[in-house]
Amino acid sequence: MSEDSQLLNAKIDVGTLQDVLTPISVLVDECKINLDQNELEIRAVDPANVCMVDVTIQSSGFEEYSAQRSVIGVDLDRFQDIIKMGGSGSEVHLVADKDTQTLQIEVENVSYTLALIDPDSIRDGPDIPNIDLDAQVEIEGSHISQGIKAAGMVSDHVELSFESDSEEFAVGAEGDTDDVEVAHGEDRVEDITVPDDAGSIYSLEYLEKVSKAISSSENIELSMDSEKPVRMEFDFADGNGRVIYMLAPRIQNS
Amino acid sequence: MSEDSQLLNAKIDVGTLQDVLTPISVLVDECKINLDQNELEIRAVDPANVCMVDVTIQSSGFEEYSAQRSVIGVDLDRFQDIIKMGGSGSEVHLVADKDTQTLQIEVENVSYTLALIDPDSIRDGPDIPNIDLDAQVEIEGSHISQGIKAAGMVSDHVELSFESDSEEFAVGAEGDTDDVEVAHGEDRVEDITVPDDAGSIYSLEYLEKVSKAISSSENIELSMDSEKPVRMEFDFADGNGRVIYMLAPRIQNS
Amino acid sequence: MSEDSQLLNAKIDVGTLQDVLTPISVLVDECKINLDQNELEIRAVDPANVCMVDVTIQSSGFEEYSAQRSVIGVDLDRFQDIIKMGGSGSEVHLVADKDTQTLQIEVENVSYTLALIDPDSIRDGPDIPNIDLDAQVEIEGSHISQGIKAAGMVSDHVELSFESDSEEFAVGAEGDTDDVEVAHGEDRVEDITVPDDAGSIYSLEYLEKVSKAISSSENIELSMDSEKPVRMEFDFADGNGRVIYMLAPRIQNS
Repeated sequence: MSEDSQLLNAKIDVGTLQDVLTPISVLVDECKINLDQNELEIRAVDPANVCMVDVTIQSSGFEEYSAQRSVIGVDLDRFQDIIKMGGSGSEVHLVADKDTQTLQIEVENVSYTLALIDPDSIRDGPDIPNIDLDAQVEIEGSHISQGIKAAGMVSDHVELSFESDSEEFAVGAEGDTDDVEVAHGEDRVEDITVPDDAGSIYSLEYLEKVSKAISSSENIELSMDSEKPVRMEFDFADGNGRVIYMLAPRIQNS
Repeated sequence: MSEDSQLLNAKIDVGTLQDVLTPISVLVDECKINLDQNELEIRAVDPANVCMVDVTIQSSGFEEYSAQRSVIGVDLDRFQDIIKMGGSGSEVHLVADKDTQTLQIEVENVSYTLALIDPDSIRDGPDIPNIDLDAQVEIEGSHISQGIKAAGMVSDHVELSFESDSEEFAVGAEGDTDDVEVAHGEDRVEDITVPDDAGSIYSLEYLEKVSKAISSSENIELSMDSEKPVRMEFDFADGNGRVIYMLAPRIQNS
Repeated sequence: MSEDSQLLNAKIDVGTLQDVLTPISVLVDECKINLDQNELEIRAVDPANVCMVDVTIQSSGFEEYSAQRSVIGVDLDRFQDIIKMGGSGSEVHLVADKDTQTLQIEVENVSYTLALIDPDSIRDGPDIPNIDLDAQVEIEGSHISQGIKAAGMVSDHVELSFESDSEEFAVGAEGDTDDVEVAHGEDRVEDITVPDDAGSIYSLEYLEKVSKAISSSENIELSMDSEKPVRMEFDFADGNGRVIYMLAPRIQNS
C-alpha cells in the first residue's frame, strides 16, 4: 500500500457522511463514487429510470481530504452499517487503495476493510439534464414530507401543483373515494415563483424514497412544470454539499 | 354545498377527537355518528355481540359546534389516520355535507375530503341496557390495565371479583398450572361498594380491547355482579364527554 | 403450607432479580435453582454444550433471605414476565413451598402462583471447570458488545485476540470479502495481562447471547488462550452477585 496507490485519504464527520450516502441509498444498493482533488461526487438512477440523484461534496466539507482523479465502487448498505458504529459527532477516516481494491474505514476504534466493487459492474449514473422548469418554490423539507404522507393515505400517485392566482404550492392526491390536499401559501414558503398554473402527477413510491433523504428542517428548492419532471435540490454540510433529485412525471390517463 | 346541507360544522382539539373515536375503533371498523344540536353520540357493538360501547360528547366539548339532527357513517381507520396528521394541541375543523355526502376534515394545512358511508349499511349500535349491578368500584385506569395484563399471562379468561369482608376488588385468572390475582383494597381505589361477594369471568380478548381505550390516569367506574355483564364508564374532555362499555360474561364451565 | 415446607422466603429488588435471571435465560428456557442458607446459585449449559453459565448471589444481595438446602425448577420466561410487572425499584417477595410445589411471587399488588417444575426433568448445569487462561483483560462491557456487533457485520465467527507487543486486546472477524477489528489498547481497558500472543475463534451466535446479559457500564473480566475457551466474569448487586460464562472455542479450518 504505497502513498501513490491511495485514491482517497479523508476524514469526515459521521453525520455529514450519512448526508452524502443516504440520498443515494434510497434509490440504489451499489454506486460509483467519483473522486478528484476538489470534490467527491455520486450520481445514480434507480433501476426503472424514474428518479435520478446527484450528490456532490466539496473538499471543504471534509475535516481532511486528498484524492486522485478516480472512480471507486461501493456497497452502500455495508458502508452505512459501518459508519453507524460511530456515535454522533464521531469522525470517520476513509482510505481507498487502488492496489488492494479496498476502502479502509476507521470510526472510533473500529477498523473495517471494505472490499471495493469493480466500477464497470455498476450502472452509470447519468448527468442530470438541464431542463427549464418555471414554477419554483423554496420550502421547508417537513412540509414536503407531510404532503407526501397525506397523499399516501388516498392514492399511489401524488399531484404537485402551483396556482398562479393564489400563489400557492400544493401537494395532493385524488383517491377512488377520498381526496386530500396540503396547500402552502406565501406565509408557509420561503420563496415562490408561479408564472402560470402548473400541475403534474408523480409516483408516490419514489417521492417516499426522496422524502427519507430530505432533512425536515432544511429548505428544499423545488421546481417543476406541467407534464415535466420535478427537480428538488438542497444543501448539506453548511453549504459544502448539494443534493439534486430529478423525478419523471407519470403519464395521466385522462 | 349550501349552508342548509351542512349536517355538522365543528372545531375540536385533536386529542379530544381521538378520545371520541378510539373507544369505538377498538371494537368496529365503521360506525354511525348521531348528531343533534346538543351532542354527538356514537354507539357500537362488536360483530360477535359481546361488547357494547356508547360515546357521547356535548357541544361544550367542542371549540365550535353546530349540527342538524342526522346520522352519518364513517370509516374509523381513515378518520383516525387523518387527524394524526395534526400535532398534539392542533384543532380539527369538521364539515359534514348532506349533498356531497362527504366529511371535510381540515387539520393544520391538510384538507381531506372523506367520503361518507351510507349509514343504512352499518349495523346499529344498541342502547346500553340499564341493568342493576350492585358491586361498584371507582379505580384508576392503570390498575385495571395492569390486572388484565397479569391475567393474560396465564389464561384467555379474566375473573373480576369483589369480596365483601375485605372490601376488595380483584382482577385475576386461573391457568392450567399458574394463577394470578391483582387485588385492590380501599387504599388503592377511589370508592368501593360491595353488598355481597360477586365474581364473574370475562373474555381476555375484549378486556384487552377496552384496556386500549382506557386512559391510565383517568378514574374508571366499574360495576358488575355474579354471572352478569361488567359496565365500565369514564369521562373525558373535562367532563364534557362520557364513554360507557358493557361486556357480557362468559359462561363458566364448572 | 407449614413454615417447614418453605424452601425459600425472600425479598429482593426487581432489578437485582433480573440480573440473576437474564444471564441464564439467554441460554436455556428452564433451570434449577440451588438454595441454601447462604446463597442462591443457578448453573446451566445450552443444549449444544457450547456455553456454560454460573450465577451466584449471596443472601446479603437480598432485602430478606431465608432458605433450606434444596433445589427447585422454574420456567424462566414465565418468571421474568411476572417480575416485569413491577416498576424499577419495586421489591419482589418470593416464597417457594415444597408441599404445594409452587413459587409464590408478589410484586407490587400482583400475586402470582408459579407451578414449580420437577428438577429431575431439567438438565444439570455443570460446574465451570477451572482452566488456566493466561491472557486476561478487564474491560467495559460496552466495548465487548461493540466488538461483537462489528464482527457480526462480516461473519458468524468472532476472533478474540491478545497481542503481546502492543498489549492490545481485539475483537474481530474475517468475512468472505471484508474484515473488521475493534482494538483496545491500554487506554481503553482497566487492566491487561498478555504473557504471549493469543487468539481463538468463537461462535457469533453465543457471543451475542452473552452480550445481551452483559451490562454495558459494568467491567467484565475476560480471560482466554489460543484454542481454549473464553471465560467472562462480572459482578452485580454491589458485589453480592457474580456471573461466570465459559464459551468453547470453534475449531479453525486452516
